[in-house]
Amino acid sequence: CRDAKMLSCGWLLALSLAALAGKKFIFILTDQCEEVNLIYLPSTAVNTTLQLQELREQMLELNISAYIIPGTDAHLSEYIAPRDARMAFMTGFTGSAGTAVVTHTKAVLWTDSRYWAQAERQMDCNWELEKDVSISSVVEWLISTVPLGGQIGFDPFLFSLSKCLFCIHPIIASVSTVMFAESTWQDKVTLIRSQLRDNPYQPTALLLSALDETAWLFNLRGSDIPYNPFFYSYTLLTMDTIWLFLHMERVTEELKVYLNASCNGSLCVQLKSYDSVLAEVKKYVAQPKVKVWIGTEYTNYALYEIITPQDKLMTSSYSPVLTTKAVKDETEQRVLRNAHVRDAVAVIQLLMWLEKAVPAGKETELTAAEYVNKCRSKQKDSKGPSFETISASGPNAALAHYNPTAETSRRLTVDEMYLVDSGGQYLDGTTDITRTVHWGTPTAMQREAFTRVLMGNIEISRTIFPSGTRGAEMLGRRALWEVGLNYGHGTGHGVGNYFSVHEWPVGFQSNNIPFKEGMFTSIEPGYYKENDFGIRIEDVVVIIPAQTKVHGHNFLTFDTVSLVPYDKKLIDTSLLSSEQLQWLNKYYETIREVVGPELDKQKLYEEKDWMLRNTEPFTSPGSSASTSISSLTLIALAVALVHDII
Amino acid sequence: CRDAKMLSCGWLLALSLAALAGKKFIFILTDQCEEVNLIYLPSTAVNTTLQLQELREQMLELNISAYIIPGTDAHLSEYIAPRDARMAFMTGFTGSAGTAVVTHTKAVLWTDSRYWAQAERQMDCNWELEKDVSISSVVEWLISTVPLGGQIGFDPFLFSLSKCLFCIHPIIASVSTVMFAESTWQDKVTLIRSQLRDNPYQPTALLLSALDETAWLFNLRGSDIPYNPFFYSYTLLTMDTIWLFLHMERVTEELKVYLNASCNGSLCVQLKSYDSVLAEVKKYVAQPKVKVWIGTEYTNYALYEIITPQDKLMTSSYSPVLTTKAVKDETEQRVLRNAHVRDAVAVIQLLMWLEKAVPAGKETELTAAEYVNKCRSKQKDSKGPSFETISASGPNAALAHYNPTAETSRRLTVDEMYLVDSGGQYLDGTTDITRTVHWGTPTAMQREAFTRVLMGNIEISRTIFPSGTRGAEMLGRRALWEVGLNYGHGTGHGVGNYFSVHEWPVGFQSNNIPFKEGMFTSIEPGYYKENDFGIRIEDVVVIIPAQTKVHGHNFLTFDTVSLVPYDKKLIDTSLLSSEQLQWLNKYYETIREVVGPELDKQKLYEEKDWMLRNTEPFTSPGSSASTSISSLTLIALAVALVHDII
Repeated sequence: CRDAKMLSCGWLLALSLAALAGKKFIFILTDQCEEVNLIYLPSTAVNTTLQLQELREQMLELNISAYIIPGTDAHLSEYIAPRDARMAFMTGFTGSAGTAVVTHTKAVLWTDSRYWAQAERQMDCNWELEKDVSISSVVEWLISTVPLGGQIGFDPFLFSLSKCLFCIHPIIASVSTVMFAESTWQDKVTLIRSQLRDNPYQPTALLLSALDETAWLFNLRGSDIPYNPFFYSYTLLTMDTIWLFLHMERVTEELKVYLNASCNGSLCVQLKSYDSVLAEVKKYVAQPKVKVWIGTEYTNYALYEIITPQDKLMTSSYSPVLTTKAVKDETEQRVLRNAHVRDAVAVIQLLMWLEKAVPAGKETELTAAEYVNKCRSKQKDSKGPSFETISASGPNAALAHYNPTAETSRRLTVDEMYLVDSGGQYLDGTTDITRTVHWGTPTAMQREAFTRVLMGNIEISRTIFPSGTRGAEMLGRRALWEVGLNYGHGTGHGVGNYFSVHEWPVGFQSNNIPFKEGMFTSIEPGYYKENDFGIRIEDVVVIIPAQTKVHGHNFLTFDTVSLVPYDKKLIDTSLLSSEQLQWLNKYYETIREVVGPELDKQKLYEEKDWMLRNTEPFTSPGSSASTSISSLTLIALAVALVHDII
Repeated sequence: CRDAKMLSCGWLLALSLAALAGKKFIFILTDQCEEVNLIYLPSTAVNTTLQLQELREQMLELNISAYIIPGTDAHLSEYIAPRDARMAFMTGFTGSAGTAVVTHTKAVLWTDSRYWAQAERQMDCNWELEKDVSISSVVEWLISTVPLGGQIGFDPFLFSLSKCLFCIHPIIASVSTVMFAESTWQDKVTLIRSQLRDNPYQPTALLLSALDETAWLFNLRGSDIPYNPFFYSYTLLTMDTIWLFLHMERVTEELKVYLNASCNGSLCVQLKSYDSVLAEVKKYVAQPKVKVWIGTEYTNYALYEIITPQDKLMTSSYSPVLTTKAVKDETEQRVLRNAHVRDAVAVIQLLMWLEKAVPAGKETELTAAEYVNKCRSKQKDSKGPSFETISASGPNAALAHYNPTAETSRRLTVDEMYLVDSGGQYLDGTTDITRTVHWGTPTAMQREAFTRVLMGNIEISRTIFPSGTRGAEMLGRRALWEVGLNYGHGTGHGVGNYFSVHEWPVGFQSNNIPFKEGMFTSIEPGYYKENDFGIRIEDVVVIIPAQTKVHGHNFLTFDTVSLVPYDKKLIDTSLLSSEQLQWLNKYYETIREVVGPELDKQKLYEEKDWMLRNTEPFTSPGSSASTSISSLTLIALAVALVHDII
């Protein structure tokens, strides 16, 4: 699935600029806990008149001119629990990225191009859509709309901590330890402490806000957020203490033993109540000679604000936990590759089944999504899908982030293209793969667009680059640009060992960190023709050392770990360079070598035949290799002719 | 010539972080005006003991633990006048980029990979070389070296304004108006004012510090900095006033008339003394309801510091003058293309002459540099070279930024490669071009490296991209990366109509602005083998609309305006893709069409023959077109055989 832009520290800067422009900000702790019923793409828009009326009454009481409603939670999570879906509740729009602003006369939503069509269908006439998603666009709008001296309200936590604990599902969630971690949590704590010690700014503590930071550090997983194995938590790590803030009622005796919760040493975890984080951090900061390191991209403003005066604060874009976690060790790499082999089996099962079932005319986007989810659930160590399956046919696929519902689900036919973007959570890893297929006869335009998307995928995958390179996005878009096509989303995101399917800060965006050996990322170029069709090809790759002619430098390349063939029918090999064709054939060889034995092991012999049929090597009339073969054939022919005649 | 990293606003942030780490800063206005005799690559290092001793005595008096000496001037110019070469004076190192820091026991220079070899040869044992040029490297070094509470000194202007006026050459420099500007200065002032008016932060004034900002705004040029047609100046532009700060003694009556200096209206320029800028800006800022817009990349700290409180300050990376100037209008484009045609004639003259003269064994790097300078000076509207010619043979070319001197100049021979990076200033434009040649038999490695550098140049040049794309650097490096090679400098920089040869903020670095139609940039990949040879291929290109199969989007591409053929001998066409070969042949056609008539006009018939010989189209044995021919030949052969036997 594709990546989203996130609101984060850029906001602080932008808001402070706005403040300079003569506007005041007011912080409001809110308690909006009502569960929102997430309906995707309803046939009619959501009526938001009542919600807006109530909000505006409260705004009047508090003398607020504008109120900002972001689409995230207190942990700046990209994927949020339904209880945190405040933007959806207020606007009707259920996309995963957006910002809403309400004034007394206007209600405006900002979202990116993936969601424009969806937002227009879900929002009623109370709302206007703004298509420029840059933070400055929102801020400039606020500046020009709010009268001088007017107050702008927002929740510094983005959501209330204090009272919403009641909203958490009353069953104590199981916080389980991960099976496949190379390092114990004690090793990890020691490693991160060494990074604090070696830092020239001499921080005395590290505050972790992002849920995957704490989950990684302690090798723990929970289930508070759909599709994401996280539990609500914060961590404050110093040289001799470890404070873990979480909901005490969910802590089992086993977990206490695992965390050494009953002792006081530097490798004993002191468990603290989730809602005491503000008070405890404040207390810590009040001490002399302390300095707290935070990653600005994933720390909320409420926590940032209490770390004062400024000489007690140290910031970097990402915490050392996130940058350390981004590079997978040998064990993590091995098990994550394994998860992708089992996942390939599930996707191959889906594609084979669709090929047979679609012509009968009974299958829909929904039944296809259910089928792949079921296939995955039968794989070893499966923990369900890693995000809601995008199963989209014909024009629905042109909405890059469409999820089928009862109202919108299209019947699958041999006359339309079909896009399926899905992934699984496994105890050893998270997967994410997209394939686009056609069961009938694609148009010339569809074949060309698909081939150019594939060329983008291959060009990134096969490139060799020095360690520390950023991006490479352009290589994914260039074949499309050449004919005037493009796509409006990012080109990839990190993926890891049983975390969120978007595992930042690895990826191809400008705020992602430089590529290093051992990182995993998706590569997912696409092309979307409105009201017609959508194409995306997504694979997960791992960064490995490259073999180059000249040695002695630290050169890297990508190795594709998603192992499912592309739709042959949609590939126009005459557009591919000989290097691209060579890459494709080598990739297909790897699928045969790696997925073949797994299909045998699972006794999926029909699937194995299907896989072999779909990974037959391509030959290109234009490539020099095949030409020299045909030249030889001609020589043989000439000789044969001569002999015949003799 | 190649681009340099500059120290700028990043410093402010870094220094303020250092301040947080418990170090104090002290601002010192200094008056170091001694002219430094710039000697390039002397056989012996410069003895800096005396300078260091004097500096340290002053540091003791002022209780300073460390003193920072950057390589720039008060205008953050990249190219500086000799009187501003404080870093060179103190360190002996004369490269165009670097930062020196002196403590009581240490003296350290930071510079980038282009200059490592040079710095090691020029600096004596008082100095250590640090090879990590990131600002954080310097700051971290300061933090770990300076004791807690210790003071770090630096000059907030980087150079004193007040007393050094005496150092300026006593002859009143001619400040001339530019011949080829499309817009009058009044048009430009009106345009920039409209950008102030439309800005949502409502700035009331714009402060211009970079010398090319004022030069562009008023269509004026001077001669204060070698190779750069600039004059020392600042501008403060408000909605109804224009304050131009410059050395009053150089203002002619003619200039006063040109600038409407005797009236008071909104299009009358009020001339003010250069050294009153601080006092005048302070006075302006003291008024109520004012807000001054500055570009942080080119405003010095002394000016930044007086714009206080913060709500009177508005910042962007670059001023609206720089972003407006980056896009050339039709006239500017046309005349800049013309300057490159005349410039191509001069470079073709050089290359032809070298081909004949080198085998005789009398020419050197110095005589070659003199020759090309002489050729340029004969072209129409020539104003001399745009930077010191880099003329480098054999191992000298491996120093990416080498300039020949009497001591180091190598004799040119048919056994070594030769690199010449040179450019001209013309009234209508600035040029910059690099060619690498071999007059004997290059090695296989030299041919492969040259071809891969050329592939990088072509891959960028022929790429199609949407307006607003940043970078594309990777395309310039990819063919080298593929075999484990790379280069340690940037890939290109803006170029314009009679300004500095590096016209920022256009270029391929991460802090450059997005590409738009009408921008000019150099493209200059390279490869350097230490103690052996150096390769660089540099062309200037203009961004033009691209013709794509699918219409309706705003796609762009590059059009090469430097028109000189590459050395045929060094091109291994078997490495080129058919698209690259096609690009090359089309480029050569353009050279014939555009430079041919100019050579005729200048009656340079021998040069025209040379050009025609060197722009003959390439054919490639590996391309599919020629392969199908060989298949056909085989068929013909088979048929012939058959017939023969019959």
